[in-house]
Amino acid sequence: MNDCLFCRIAAGEIPSTVVYEDEMTFAFRDIAPQAPKHVLVIPKKHVADWYEARKEDDALLSGMMRAAAKVAELEGLTESGFRVISNTGADARQTVKHLHMHVLGGAELTEKMG
Amino acid sequence: MNDCLFCRIAAGEIPSTVVYEDEMTFAFRDIAPQAPKHVLVIPKKHVADWYEARKEDDALLSGMMRAAAKVAELEGLTESGFRVISNTGADARQTVKHLHMHVLGGAELTEKMG
Repeated sequence: MNDCLFCRIAAGEIPSTVVYEDEMTFAFRDIAPQAPKHVLVIPKKHVADWYEARKEDDALLSGMMRAAAKVAELEGLTESGFRVISNTGADARQTVKHLHMHVLGGAELTEKMG
Repeated sequence: MNDCLFCRIAAGEIPSTVVYEDEMTFAFRDIAPQAPKHVLVIPKKHVADWYEARKEDDALLSGMMRAAAKVAELEGLTESGFRVISNTGADARQTVKHLHMHVLGGAELTEKMG
């Protein structure tokens, strides 16, 4: 049994509020949102982080970027803008070891990024 | 004459501290760093933002992700971790209208992302 939280969410074993889904990616609302709109985009395939992601083919990596832009569109952020963040490792506070991108928007975001 | 700041930096018309470069991407130090390590990764080709990026081919998009991970490696962030951020539009405070990813690390980063 796969004990990765995000693999289980993508598989529907753990409920989530789905925002977007395609063959390769799955997007759902963050349960602790840091902005009015806060969605997580993950690959359905288990990939731990950006280092692992480098071993994947172009379609998976570009698919993540396309999905994040699609989520922004679906969330109505086309005009106002959005921030995409992906954290790898301890200093960046990566909590779930399954590659994910945060898509944030719906209000003016903080200037401080680090 | 191209008046895009990042196009001119990638072309060497405006000096920068280069961290990494390959056929498609160019990476240089942010002049106003928000962390001990703060590098910008851009495509050499002019692409305004993530919406424009969706029209590009997979190689350019995946190349951006691979370049960001490569920069993290070159900056010695493999063990400690790093954050990748890309801002589109006003709410996210995108200042230069040429797609770019911030790679931040070298210290524990803020928990707040939005």
